[in-house]
Amino acid sequence: MRIVDPEKHLARRRQILDAAAVCFAQRGFHQTRTAEICAEAGMSPGNVFHYFSGKDEIIAAIVDEDGQEAAARFALADGDGDAVEALLARVDESLAMAAEPLRARITLEVVAEAVRNPAMMDCVTRNEAVRREALLRLLEQAHAQGRVAAGVNTVAVADVILVLLDGFFDRAVIDPAFDAGQARNHLRAIILRLLGMEGA
Amino acid sequence: MRIVDPEKHLARRRQILDAAAVCFAQRGFHQTRTAEICAEAGMSPGNVFHYFSGKDEIIAAIVDEDGQEAAARFALADGDGDAVEALLARVDESLAMAAEPLRARITLEVVAEAVRNPAMMDCVTRNEAVRREALLRLLEQAHAQGRVAAGVNTVAVADVILVLLDGFFDRAVIDPAFDAGQARNHLRAIILRLLGMEGA
Repeated sequence: MRIVDPEKHLARRRQILDAAAVCFAQRGFHQTRTAEICAEAGMSPGNVFHYFSGKDEIIAAIVDEDGQEAAARFALADGDGDAVEALLARVDESLAMAAEPLRARITLEVVAEAVRNPAMMDCVTRNEAVRREALLRLLEQAHAQGRVAAGVNTVAVADVILVLLDGFFDRAVIDPAFDAGQARNHLRAIILRLLGMEGA
Repeated sequence: MRIVDPEKHLARRRQILDAAAVCFAQRGFHQTRTAEICAEAGMSPGNVFHYFSGKDEIIAAIVDEDGQEAAARFALADGDGDAVEALLARVDESLAMAAEPLRARITLEVVAEAVRNPAMMDCVTRNEAVRREALLRLLEQAHAQGRVAAGVNTVAVADVILVLLDGFFDRAVIDPAFDAGQARNHLRAIILRLLGMEGA
């Protein structure tokens, strides 16, 4: 096997994944041909096939990367800081992603595809489990820090936050009047309310 | 033009739309061929084309019907009854739809497609506007009935409910542990909390 410069290798992969994301968001997975991804990336098919065996592997890499990013983002939050602030910051970041049209579209496309593609569904549910666990950890920290009212079920709160984030991804795409700043304020207010800390 | 029995005409349309929904949920819009819809409906292509010009018109009819159903469901709620109960009943019905796998999948498929198809996006945003307006009307009634705490912004509450319903549709598809009964309880509790009536 040829020895490759790892940095260059990663940069090339990045270039292909970014080009694929643009194509998928515009035309969807099934109507995008590999040739179009190559053209968008400005690379020859031979070059692209050196990195990915085909469209399916590119899709899988995009979904995997999305999960790794989310995991890294939530992991950053572990620490000694204010867990509620950390939680709200993570939620803000997720909402900021919903406000990126390309990202929101790809997310919808992935979910619609996962229904019919068990490998992709595995990937999506794995990502979800990571997000959920990280969220639960933050809520437990918040609880330990006395930032959660008595009687509040943190597991239920985590699930509602995930539902709300999913919903905002949908809204960002279908609601022409979607306002990311307003969504952020709503979401913060609801989370504080759910934690029983609205007066805090 | 041939005179048709209107009841038979509607029954045939229904048969085609139901068959198409099954195909679309299984394979998605783009990978479903019109021939597959005909086979699923047990009708000849000639017969199907008598009712719809093609796949696109079938998709449009499914989305339109969805909107009409939602509008009718929410309109039912207008009246002298308890507006909060009526609101919760409508929300229950929406959640029950999310728990129907076929329905939830078609909804995701429609949203993913709407991103690339302006006619479908028009249809989706029209349906959304109808749902939102009906929801606002119910919340105003609830307000008039003294069921909303002072200082609560009913427009914001309506938007959050729409976000939550969207999110639950997503969850129903991607979360293998999705529990419709639990989702219903969560959603009811959140709505009462948002109305400032959790102690009621």
